[in-house]
Amino acid sequence: MTTTSVPAEGAARKVTVLGLGDMGSAIARTFVEHGFRTTVWNRTASKSAPLVEAGATAAATAAEAVAASPLVVICLLDGTAVDEVLASVDTAVAGKVLVNVTSGSPAQARAYERWVGERGAQYIDGKVMGDPPDVGKPHVVFPFSGSRAAYEAHEPTLRVLGGVAYHGDDAGAAAVEFMAQVAMGFELLIGFLHTLKLVQAEGVDVTEFTDRLAASVAAYPPLLTSMAEAVKSGEYRPDLGSLDVQAALMDDLISHRESVGVESVRMREVKTLMTHRIAEGHGDQGFSSLFELLGK
Amino acid sequence: MTTTSVPAEGAARKVTVLGLGDMGSAIARTFVEHGFRTTVWNRTASKSAPLVEAGATAAATAAEAVAASPLVVICLLDGTAVDEVLASVDTAVAGKVLVNVTSGSPAQARAYERWVGERGAQYIDGKVMGDPPDVGKPHVVFPFSGSRAAYEAHEPTLRVLGGVAYHGDDAGAAAVEFMAQVAMGFELLIGFLHTLKLVQAEGVDVTEFTDRLAASVAAYPPLLTSMAEAVKSGEYRPDLGSLDVQAALMDDLISHRESVGVESVRMREVKTLMTHRIAEGHGDQGFSSLFELLGK
Repeated sequence: MTTTSVPAEGAARKVTVLGLGDMGSAIARTFVEHGFRTTVWNRTASKSAPLVEAGATAAATAAEAVAASPLVVICLLDGTAVDEVLASVDTAVAGKVLVNVTSGSPAQARAYERWVGERGAQYIDGKVMGDPPDVGKPHVVFPFSGSRAAYEAHEPTLRVLGGVAYHGDDAGAAAVEFMAQVAMGFELLIGFLHTLKLVQAEGVDVTEFTDRLAASVAAYPPLLTSMAEAVKSGEYRPDLGSLDVQAALMDDLISHRESVGVESVRMREVKTLMTHRIAEGHGDQGFSSLFELLGK
Repeated sequence: MTTTSVPAEGAARKVTVLGLGDMGSAIARTFVEHGFRTTVWNRTASKSAPLVEAGATAAATAAEAVAASPLVVICLLDGTAVDEVLASVDTAVAGKVLVNVTSGSPAQARAYERWVGERGAQYIDGKVMGDPPDVGKPHVVFPFSGSRAAYEAHEPTLRVLGGVAYHGDDAGAAAVEFMAQVAMGFELLIGFLHTLKLVQAEGVDVTEFTDRLAASVAAYPPLLTSMAEAVKSGEYRPDLGSLDVQAALMDDLISHRESVGVESVRMREVKTLMTHRIAEGHGDQGFSSLFELLGK
């Protein structure tokens, strides 16, 4: 691995990728396809062969890979793997910008930022909202957070990976965004599967039902927006109707689900929250007011 | 209340509404505004005054109201109220079409259909997906089910109430549709409130987050469609990536939520289901394959 000096513009077109699992490989390949001088490293060296064939350079060690480029993208299996690789490169990170897109928590991101900063480097945390085959397409979204200066300097490079968004200088913010969006997705999708169980148990065609449901779901965003405004302001108008009216439905929903063998954990939770809120004298408010009871 | 014979066309423009709560009043008022000769009845007679002022005719008893029109829309508080009113009118329903939009279960709808059929009348069950102020606008949706002949004969009348859809001759089908759609809405919305709690706990602006989330939610319908197809066919492709990959996220999601005091009931359920499915040798399938474990 040569480290001869190159013109500034050339330096800006050099990037290193540490970790060549499915996602790391997709990221490295995207950089190669966009003409970056791409250096790759993986603990199991054989993973680099297809990328070298595509035009990347394989480094023998993580430290050598870090030395090769001003921008180092880290995409490993988990936080344990990141810890090991960072320990192995240690002060070799000085002067570099590290962009870590490995799965992990906001707290881990903040800890990496400290570690990296102590060694004279800048840290950007990132997460990938999409699958490896989507990398390089606009619908895969990469939330980033951490050093604003580093992000602004390297955004043109990061943008080749897909849709990018900067969430602020709290290094944990990208992980918060990722976890909140992914959890909301799982909430929606597991609720959806239970709903399909319900309609199937009642003899309804699940794909025909889903055509109708999809139209309903597509109409929810304005309601989400107004509920978020209610939560922010603390002024809970009767969004879906008042809680008094909504609560009257819950027993029917619960008993029907149980009559066809479908779980009702969220319906019971909603009923309990509504009952509590009504008992507190807020039966004229809307669903969004249940927010006041969460975490209590 | 006279029951003189009227021309067929005139008869088709007569309608009775039993029950003048917020929803029943909105329905009756919509019929009046569309020029129907509208007869109304409510147990507490004073509720009919504003409708009489608008042009409706108040009947002294439910039986008299039923006698006045070929089409009788029932919109009461609950099943107990419906039982009482039906018992009071009994054989007066002969030859009529009863459209009951009172909240209730599929089983109740099927029982009403039998009761009504035994008295020589036709039954249509309906539900209202919307609030009283929305009645008469296209975005309020009324699913109907039951007698196809009666529905087809009276669809032009019912259509003045909003968007209408016929779900088949199982009288319970409209209630199934309503309960499935409403439950899915509550799943989405309570998951959303928990997610707002998460981002707020992390110092993120809830309305800015929701702007981003709304864009994500609007993109879910095609995924719902493909998941329903997977459930119907039993062929579970790796939709969000394979379960092996998805499961690796769940511990991070759960521990992060707990670190900021946000509940994780659905995340734990999803993790348990994924672990189970992977243990059964299906780690290469997608999220939709969790359907196979529901209700077991």
